[in-house]
Amino acid sequence: MAIKTLGAKAAAALDQELMSTCAFSLDQLMELAGLSVSQAVYRVHPLSKGRRVLVACGPGNNGGDGLVAARHLFFYGYQPTIYYPKRSKNELYQRLSKQLEDLNVPFVDDFQSAIGQTDHIVDAIFGFSFSGEVREPFPAVIQALQDTKLPVTSVDAPSSWDIEKGPPASGLGSSFMPTALVSLSAPKPLVNHFTGRHFVGGRFVSPLIAKKYDFDVPEYQGIDQIVEVPVAGQKL
Amino acid sequence: MAIKTLGAKAAAALDQELMSTCAFSLDQLMELAGLSVSQAVYRVHPLSKGRRVLVACGPGNNGGDGLVAARHLFFYGYQPTIYYPKRSKNELYQRLSKQLEDLNVPFVDDFQSAIGQTDHIVDAIFGFSFSGEVREPFPAVIQALQDTKLPVTSVDAPSSWDIEKGPPASGLGSSFMPTALVSLSAPKPLVNHFTGRHFVGGRFVSPLIAKKYDFDVPEYQGIDQIVEVPVAGQKL
Repeated sequence: MAIKTLGAKAAAALDQELMSTCAFSLDQLMELAGLSVSQAVYRVHPLSKGRRVLVACGPGNNGGDGLVAARHLFFYGYQPTIYYPKRSKNELYQRLSKQLEDLNVPFVDDFQSAIGQTDHIVDAIFGFSFSGEVREPFPAVIQALQDTKLPVTSVDAPSSWDIEKGPPASGLGSSFMPTALVSLSAPKPLVNHFTGRHFVGGRFVSPLIAKKYDFDVPEYQGIDQIVEVPVAGQKL
Repeated sequence: MAIKTLGAKAAAALDQELMSTCAFSLDQLMELAGLSVSQAVYRVHPLSKGRRVLVACGPGNNGGDGLVAARHLFFYGYQPTIYYPKRSKNELYQRLSKQLEDLNVPFVDDFQSAIGQTDHIVDAIFGFSFSGEVREPFPAVIQALQDTKLPVTSVDAPSSWDIEKGPPASGLGSSFMPTALVSLSAPKPLVNHFTGRHFVGGRFVSPLIAKKYDFDVPEYQGIDQIVEVPVAGQKL
């Protein structure tokens, strides 16, 4: 059975609706999204596999989810390091950064050096609003994510992938296949090209909204904020 | 070993500091507080003991924590009902209420009737800023909480208890002993009078802040947002 997905335009509309008629604040949504990501990392890469996690954050909401995830990971006992080269001036992101600074979580400028000193990477660079080309300084980061043998968990989309069509046909990102992907609220069409471990997170979407946008809310277990959902051809 | 507690004034100062120098928004703190409460309810009263949960919400932040907890409980599979007689006009509480209404969670006016149709009660009426007397319409609610044989989980304080001195010496609330108590961030002095199951929640306090306010951050396990901490004379 094919997995139902939400295209880029529909995902943007859903996001807007969550923050307007559904009355969620961006603070709230980002806290819950980042919490989901942290739980997926805990599942894919438990503390016993190494505590060091490098979180690569892009300039927008995907980066914000990464900042929140990093904070939760700290409290689980991980040692996060943040690469956040294009810091947003938005007040929310500044606050999320401050919360990490208060935990003495280091922010680093040199991704190449940082990747040599971590056990796991969180790719929170680009999300469902990405299209077009990868801007500086991220091409070298995507290249490193593509080349590394370390496990990578991507937030909502493997960065550089087209939301609808998946990986670029050639060049940068064309052979980037993260270890895990956390689809927030609903999987995007790119999951049809994904062959790693796939999780859905964001346990706050009402049944009515899921119906309106025609996606399935998976069966979460217990108090989990994520659920592993196989992609095409996979069995759990 | 005595448990370290945070007096009413110190708790208010901590709350202010979290939202100023620590850069948390009330939205964020309330989301995490409510999440903690929902996890404690799941622990004390798993779904197998009955899905119906009546959440009694007061007019302030304690009530807001209850609204958030109710939403998470809905997603875990509970059937929450909300008693929220003094709705705040504050925009945040209105949004939290809307999020529940979108899930078709009922808001009821008659607590006495509602208590006859539930399996568990969450007391989110008064928190650490409570002092003085219980105002209308809450005296009858406190009386019902005191009289019921149903399990009750209180948020931060058993409502009507003095934050420092515990239960009133006589009259309303003097024999109210909830089944469980979720202390948010740090236990208040009233825990020295509490004999039920005690949890600490709010896994976002930095080690520096805990040191400054002289309380212990308990050892949370895994991804849990709560941890059970024995009170005086208890062993786990």
